[in-house]
Amino acid sequence: MQFDTLDDIRAFCRDLPQGNAHVADAATRRQQNLTKPPGSLGRLEELAIWLARWQGREVPWLGRVTIAVFAGNHGVAGRGVSAYPQAVTGQMVANFAAGGAAINQIAQSAGAELRVVPIELDRPTRDFTVASAMDADEFLAAIDIGYRTVPGDCDLLAVGEMGIANTTTAAMLCAALLGGGGKRWAGRGTGVDEGGLLRKRAAIDAGLDFHRGMLGDPLRVAAALGGRELAAIAGAVLAARRQGIPVLLDGFVATAAVLPLARLERGALDHCRAGHVSAESGHRELLRELTLDPLLDLGMRLGEASGAAVAILLARAALACHAGMATFAEAGVSGAGD
Amino acid sequence: MQFDTLDDIRAFCRDLPQGNAHVADAATRRQQNLTKPPGSLGRLEELAIWLARWQGREVPWLGRVTIAVFAGNHGVAGRGVSAYPQAVTGQMVANFAAGGAAINQIAQSAGAELRVVPIELDRPTRDFTVASAMDADEFLAAIDIGYRTVPGDCDLLAVGEMGIANTTTAAMLCAALLGGGGKRWAGRGTGVDEGGLLRKRAAIDAGLDFHRGMLGDPLRVAAALGGRELAAIAGAVLAARRQGIPVLLDGFVATAAVLPLARLERGALDHCRAGHVSAESGHRELLRELTLDPLLDLGMRLGEASGAAVAILLARAALACHAGMATFAEAGVSGAGD
Repeated sequence: MQFDTLDDIRAFCRDLPQGNAHVADAATRRQQNLTKPPGSLGRLEELAIWLARWQGREVPWLGRVTIAVFAGNHGVAGRGVSAYPQAVTGQMVANFAAGGAAINQIAQSAGAELRVVPIELDRPTRDFTVASAMDADEFLAAIDIGYRTVPGDCDLLAVGEMGIANTTTAAMLCAALLGGGGKRWAGRGTGVDEGGLLRKRAAIDAGLDFHRGMLGDPLRVAAALGGRELAAIAGAVLAARRQGIPVLLDGFVATAAVLPLARLERGALDHCRAGHVSAESGHRELLRELTLDPLLDLGMRLGEASGAAVAILLARAALACHAGMATFAEAGVSGAGD
Repeated sequence: MQFDTLDDIRAFCRDLPQGNAHVADAATRRQQNLTKPPGSLGRLEELAIWLARWQGREVPWLGRVTIAVFAGNHGVAGRGVSAYPQAVTGQMVANFAAGGAAINQIAQSAGAELRVVPIELDRPTRDFTVASAMDADEFLAAIDIGYRTVPGDCDLLAVGEMGIANTTTAAMLCAALLGGGGKRWAGRGTGVDEGGLLRKRAAIDAGLDFHRGMLGDPLRVAAALGGRELAAIAGAVLAARRQGIPVLLDGFVATAAVLPLARLERGALDHCRAGHVSAESGHRELLRELTLDPLLDLGMRLGEASGAAVAILLARAALACHAGMATFAEAGVSGAGD
């Protein structure tokens, strides 16, 4: 395992690779010479420079783009917090394998490979309102699965998840690490009714109460109040950081999954961009807390990395401009004020 | 010519094709059976249904996607309203032809053909502060060029422009048709300085004053205060409406170009979506006036259809999901409340 103890993760996060600032500067200068008013490609310029920094290449490439979708089940599902039965997690994993889900179609559009990793679906985490969802060993095992899912030679990673009841788990992590309780963080998820929403809030508030002694420790929170697929996302994001791979985060659950890393170390998500902002109510607020500015705002709330996968298309367009455009000199185009 | 007089355009706009509501309903039902919570793909669902309505196909397709970029020059450029010299319009047209501009790269990313149509670059429109930019015949000729640019068999059209000083022209049309003067509508364009911005405002206010007798007539405004590339965009959008082709609008100038159609007839832009909202200051307000909700908000302000072209990628992802996803029944996935 990459991390045998929680302290190993803490040590890694204290000494994170920082990307290549010289390459980022060179990419920035390159953008300034391309045939367009400076800054006029907006976030496409920023994306190209971000890819350059983390890949360490002035002209980055996107040969191998990987979408990792982790799936897990949740004890808290027993509290009636989802509109769907828990069996849907496994059914959707089968749907991913058969190519029938949204993420299969978007991955193909985006020229990305899809890795679906179900994690012990027949062994849900324990109900966090009355127990620790995972102990440290279970948590580290899930981190390790995520870590090992990331191909060393991948050029861009998108991370997402599938797990009935996991917007409750995500809201739980937000409430534990950012405050505000169930009222602030619980949303409609896949479309829960008013009663379900009240049960979500109550579960989160019960979780806060049961675990109140350890809320100051982000990794213990991630284990005791999180989920296996969320831990795997955190592991994948750590692997990407070690290997110089930029990351597109998906929606509320995927972002909540890496919140513990950001609470552990400011800057732990510098190699990540928010692919989109979900319609799930807590996501916009979570992104604001993390100062992540989402690339897309399409009212999506599906998970399975679908929003991050759409954002891959933006990265490809950004790179196409960065790599393919002529400079003012090459094209014989006059600059401003000429 | 499709339209020999302004009255021919008025007559066409009184009797616009309305798209196929039955097909749109069928596409909506299809979306509801796909393996995702209803509505969870957000605007990707809306895009698929919109394509279905205007193509008249429950499962639309995007075999031929055309990006039309019209270029023109503007007499008002002589008033010092742009950071770039007028020669850049032609230089950029050459850059498009050579494949070196942003739109070339994005078009390739989006699998779209690019049609670049320069319109009498050596004959700029007259300065609207002291004359009519175009007479009716010149305006109708530009409309016709735009109309004829649209391939009858194209499945989706994106429209954009290139023309030094044309954010001034666009702001002029907005001020004439929506009120508020130069202060409300003039922005920084390609990056004009404070003095240039003041000159833009002054030019617009002078145009309002000079043409004050005819501001109630959208088509006369489009001729006397507009530009050739803007008129061509309006012509292309009319051609698309007649032929059942959905349209993605680019930024401030492309949207201002079709504002006269919307003022002529509510619903004239029902087959159009705003590909993005530009960083050019007037665009967000113009979209609000037109009740167009932009698909992207990436801080782009380049023109040349670049924002609309990025939105083609979203349309492709939307269609991939609509066409390729399994239904709940096909995949054996339980529905909500099962």
